[in-house]
Amino acid sequence: MTTDNLILALDFGGTKLSAAVTYGNSYKWLGLQRVITPANADGKYEYIAMLELAYRLTNSFGKPSIIGVSFGGPVDSKAGIVHLSHHVANWENIPLQAQLQNKFAVPVVIDNDANMGALAEYKFGAGRGCDSLLYVTVSTGIGSGWIINGKPYNGFNGMAGEIGHIVVNPRGMPCACGKQGCLEAEACGPAIAKLAKLAIEMNPTEGRELLNCVNQSVQRLTAKHVNEAANMYDPLANTILNGAGHFLGKGLAVALNLMNPQRIILGGGVAKSGDAWWQSVRETAREFTIPEIPVDIVPTELGDDAPLWGAIALAKLHL
Amino acid sequence: MTTDNLILALDFGGTKLSAAVTYGNSYKWLGLQRVITPANADGKYEYIAMLELAYRLTNSFGKPSIIGVSFGGPVDSKAGIVHLSHHVANWENIPLQAQLQNKFAVPVVIDNDANMGALAEYKFGAGRGCDSLLYVTVSTGIGSGWIINGKPYNGFNGMAGEIGHIVVNPRGMPCACGKQGCLEAEACGPAIAKLAKLAIEMNPTEGRELLNCVNQSVQRLTAKHVNEAANMYDPLANTILNGAGHFLGKGLAVALNLMNPQRIILGGGVAKSGDAWWQSVRETAREFTIPEIPVDIVPTELGDDAPLWGAIALAKLHL
Repeated sequence: MTTDNLILALDFGGTKLSAAVTYGNSYKWLGLQRVITPANADGKYEYIAMLELAYRLTNSFGKPSIIGVSFGGPVDSKAGIVHLSHHVANWENIPLQAQLQNKFAVPVVIDNDANMGALAEYKFGAGRGCDSLLYVTVSTGIGSGWIINGKPYNGFNGMAGEIGHIVVNPRGMPCACGKQGCLEAEACGPAIAKLAKLAIEMNPTEGRELLNCVNQSVQRLTAKHVNEAANMYDPLANTILNGAGHFLGKGLAVALNLMNPQRIILGGGVAKSGDAWWQSVRETAREFTIPEIPVDIVPTELGDDAPLWGAIALAKLHL
Repeated sequence: MTTDNLILALDFGGTKLSAAVTYGNSYKWLGLQRVITPANADGKYEYIAMLELAYRLTNSFGKPSIIGVSFGGPVDSKAGIVHLSHHVANWENIPLQAQLQNKFAVPVVIDNDANMGALAEYKFGAGRGCDSLLYVTVSTGIGSGWIINGKPYNGFNGMAGEIGHIVVNPRGMPCACGKQGCLEAEACGPAIAKLAKLAIEMNPTEGRELLNCVNQSVQRLTAKHVNEAANMYDPLANTILNGAGHFLGKGLAVALNLMNPQRIILGGGVAKSGDAWWQSVRETAREFTIPEIPVDIVPTELGDDAPLWGAIALAKLHL
């Protein structure tokens, strides 16, 4: 027997799994379970590990009325199928919705983490009251999700929000997709790290603070170190972060010109960068957006839990 | 006394004024009036000339229940105010909705021509059955209008669809907006003419067919001549048209990646270009759109009357 109004939310993130339960009329979770995914985990491992988290919650709180799922990768939300994970093997064409429906014998709704982030911020976070908004996650990749006319908008075949593959620098960095200068290739976390490494290799006297952050071991550099060094006024780190912010601003200007959303919300690890990065993002977006369109770009309020909150919000829409 | 279901539609185009009447349940117009705007006409002239067309129709068919208006320039559709016309003077901040409401004592609804084109193609034309679509008019400027989830989407403050000011060529042509390489500066009609003139000036032996089209008078060249010459296999004309098509394709790819619309519909004078231009547009859009997103780009079915049909459709939504 299901427990009235009880929602189970599952978030398959890039590096961790989270599960939470709440009631349909509540705005906080009753129970939360998390686990870090080991580096060698694959899709089968993650599925079983997530079931374990879910069972722990249902054993304590009862059988849910509905399950909402956020997945960190492309999903066909209508068919309930995970296309793939960019981080973890063996997630190709997995009918996750049907699998979970069979396991729990309750309805399951599913969408990707960027769409879930958008819905979460709209319902509970930095986008409350914004009937049109874009949520952009700037992390190991760059993805985005839309709220349009107060509703999630996924596009004709669920692929809307691929802002990461807009070309912002035609003669820029090669992208995994095969093109050059995609937003993702210029502004995501690994791109920032790669640009820092290239700059130091070309001129080993630069980036002292940056090298101190990683005990002189260039190969260990990540975007987080670049941000740390920029906060300590390392000129090289600053130049690289500002450049990444500049290209993100150009990408956001495209979205602003095309869709005129009320607000843009930035999440993901790179959005935890300091003021200089934010200034670069906002100034460039303003520069490349026509003057009649307001530019309102803010950080996530829900942080890394935005997709989990989105899974709750999606389930609520279907309660 | 108003005539039940009678709709009056008015289209303030760049070079002509059109007015039509129809019934709410009908799919053709009962009466149509058109007039070409003289070159020196201003906003006041156009307003009075349009009233004359409207009176001719209302004298024959009776007082309408509602009036739908399409305007060729930025409009605040909520407030009912025309911001300006890019072609005709004295249209700055005109409360056109209120003026027409006072004149006819019936409700008036108003929007810009790109949004009206989108709605028209969705209801009556090449976009029937497409719950998400983008209508792009490629003419003296480049504008666009959205249908999202089966409804017109104008953006937070009515400015959505400014695809013309997306930068597609960072080191490209200067744009009237002050930036470089905007889609409009690379691919609209006047841009095509300008590039042809520049090319001939730089190398006077090129573009023979093109020069024949204008009796050797370079300054008279328009985009239409470039298309005519391209159809006669003039290599210079072909290169220029293909280049313009290439940049339009890049701009459309941005819209496809961001919004994944079911279909894109192209209207305006430049969209009457031949197969080579269309091929360039479609191939480039396919190249710069991620593989999972289908690319379906078709010509308008309603042609230059799309905005007039859109005004009818908008009025129907409010009947």
